[in-house]
Amino acid sequence: MVKTEEKALKELDKFAENLLEQLNKKEAPSFQIPSRTRSNVEFDKEKEIIDITGKKSTRSFINASHVRKFMQTLLVAKAAEEYIKNDRTVTKRELYYNLKRKLPGTSKNTWEDDDESSAVIEDLEATLGLLRQQMNISAKSRGSIYGDITIKQAGDEFSCKKLGKGGWAIPGNVEDVEIVDYNAERILFIETEAMQSRLIEEGAYDDLDTLLITGQGMAPRGVKRFLKRLQEETDLPVIAFTDGDPFGFYIYSVLKHGSMGLSHVNDHYAVPNSKFVGMTMDDIDEYGLENVTEELDEQARKKIEHNMNYEWFKYHPEWIEEMKKMKEKGVRIEQQALANKSLEFVAETYLPEKIENEEFLP
Amino acid sequence: MVKTEEKALKELDKFAENLLEQLNKKEAPSFQIPSRTRSNVEFDKEKEIIDITGKKSTRSFINASHVRKFMQTLLVAKAAEEYIKNDRTVTKRELYYNLKRKLPGTSKNTWEDDDESSAVIEDLEATLGLLRQQMNISAKSRGSIYGDITIKQAGDEFSCKKLGKGGWAIPGNVEDVEIVDYNAERILFIETEAMQSRLIEEGAYDDLDTLLITGQGMAPRGVKRFLKRLQEETDLPVIAFTDGDPFGFYIYSVLKHGSMGLSHVNDHYAVPNSKFVGMTMDDIDEYGLENVTEELDEQARKKIEHNMNYEWFKYHPEWIEEMKKMKEKGVRIEQQALANKSLEFVAETYLPEKIENEEFLP
Repeated sequence: MVKTEEKALKELDKFAENLLEQLNKKEAPSFQIPSRTRSNVEFDKEKEIIDITGKKSTRSFINASHVRKFMQTLLVAKAAEEYIKNDRTVTKRELYYNLKRKLPGTSKNTWEDDDESSAVIEDLEATLGLLRQQMNISAKSRGSIYGDITIKQAGDEFSCKKLGKGGWAIPGNVEDVEIVDYNAERILFIETEAMQSRLIEEGAYDDLDTLLITGQGMAPRGVKRFLKRLQEETDLPVIAFTDGDPFGFYIYSVLKHGSMGLSHVNDHYAVPNSKFVGMTMDDIDEYGLENVTEELDEQARKKIEHNMNYEWFKYHPEWIEEMKKMKEKGVRIEQQALANKSLEFVAETYLPEKIENEEFLP
Repeated sequence: MVKTEEKALKELDKFAENLLEQLNKKEAPSFQIPSRTRSNVEFDKEKEIIDITGKKSTRSFINASHVRKFMQTLLVAKAAEEYIKNDRTVTKRELYYNLKRKLPGTSKNTWEDDDESSAVIEDLEATLGLLRQQMNISAKSRGSIYGDITIKQAGDEFSCKKLGKGGWAIPGNVEDVEIVDYNAERILFIETEAMQSRLIEEGAYDDLDTLLITGQGMAPRGVKRFLKRLQEETDLPVIAFTDGDPFGFYIYSVLKHGSMGLSHVNDHYAVPNSKFVGMTMDDIDEYGLENVTEELDEQARKKIEHNMNYEWFKYHPEWIEEMKKMKEKGVRIEQQALANKSLEFVAETYLPEKIENEEFLP
């Protein structure tokens, strides 16, 4: 059993004991849940992460409007304990199916759709201060890592540099991953798997002394958590490399400050000291890429406006500046557009120059 | 240089020499392209794949409506030769950027969007009888394999059973992958990565003597090609395991007979002798899963109608029967719904029973 599992069992135990105590005192059992409504989400400028305020709500067994959720919360808590003890990891969807059943004497089920189970899982995360992965409720697996790092999981030890051109597929649950050894100066977080492949082929992991991680677009929990653990345990700088568009910037903002949806657990994910290497609007002129930009469509323009309204964007004048330049130019620029110079340009010129000169956005 | 690269260079050479010959004879250069229009696609019942008929069209340099495409085809052919010689693999999008430039003395570019470059790449595939990967134009990487198989690529040799819980991320280009050794009785092609994770955790690769491959939904070219090569070189039976819905069935149909979009190269992808283990509509009653079905939505109902009209669906009365049952029941059933029995049910009961009794659809 890994350490996080022991911690999770302890928290689950404490949760149950607290309810039991109330019952023994003939009190109506209830527990407190940190509120996760949007109005309770704020950008914490000290921690530099999107966080929830301290506000809590109470969930009580004898309140008619709470009792269903109360039952569901206990159902998940009980199951989580079993999953951990039986060394099983489930997906959210699997948990939904695993625990769906008719409630005796009614026409109702434990839940009717997985919105119900998902909400309760997040409630438990917030209440217990645990990630759902730490309760063996796994996230989607997507994304991969390539580079000079040796990893151990489930008894296997392997180097992520000795896997052909494919890298290691990062699983949804990385709590039991051990970082055995590494030889790198930095972690490059890459938006697209296509750019990761380019950098693998160019040998950039070697020349730039970097680990290459991609989340294939917006990184899923598994990749974000792996990156966070990697950063904490190696203390290597994290550099983000995305498309030069409002979506790429948003992906970066989630990496750095966390997301609104995970505001109750962002401290397990966000890497506030990460930097942004590109693509920027200035790259277009700097590297003569005018001919390979794409026009902003309606969706992109809307996303720019949304971005500019977020507290954590306003916190960085450089980010707002970037959004303004996008609007002015009316274009976006993809990572892969660098291939217009030459295939090796990104690995031999663009990244080395920017990294050498620390030409980063905050 | 791997064998397919040598073959590709030879085909590209032949293509160029043929044009040169015409020029030397003072003829207007032209070449023939197998027609890939929908009306030229048919289900070949002998080969059991979706194929193009023999119809060809001519692309000529001195025809005003051909000249742009003629130029583009030669541009890609020339670049492909360079990619192979320089040991570079590009994505389609990268190729688009790599070769986009202003045509001297005009306001036009070599192409304006990547629909143009993509069409020409497929033209070349059809004309030369090569996959674009064999011309070092890579497919998207997504999906992974887990199980007792040792693979070699780019000088690295590794076992896909010794990679923690993550498996090997299958790259977009697998032409240079070598299958060194394997120990398995079958290949299980799994629709969702979540189900693959379940089967990894349950040790099903061992108990069922199977390699576990997922394409994460509709499998990308890299996964399909890897599976095809694996099947040809090992002669192991391929068994598909998808959701019980029209989309899952369509994914299976593409695995077995190929897709319309790739009709000119389906013989490099399709595995006509593969079988289908589930989920089926009968599974719902058989295993008591009535409570964990999902209602068919409008999109699913439309997809059923589309499926029933395809020649390659009509070719299998069992498939049509399945579509009809779906319509009648009005529901779909996901792979993960098996978790309603128990987490281990799929690995300890469902799959072993069905495989033992060869309860497959064709």
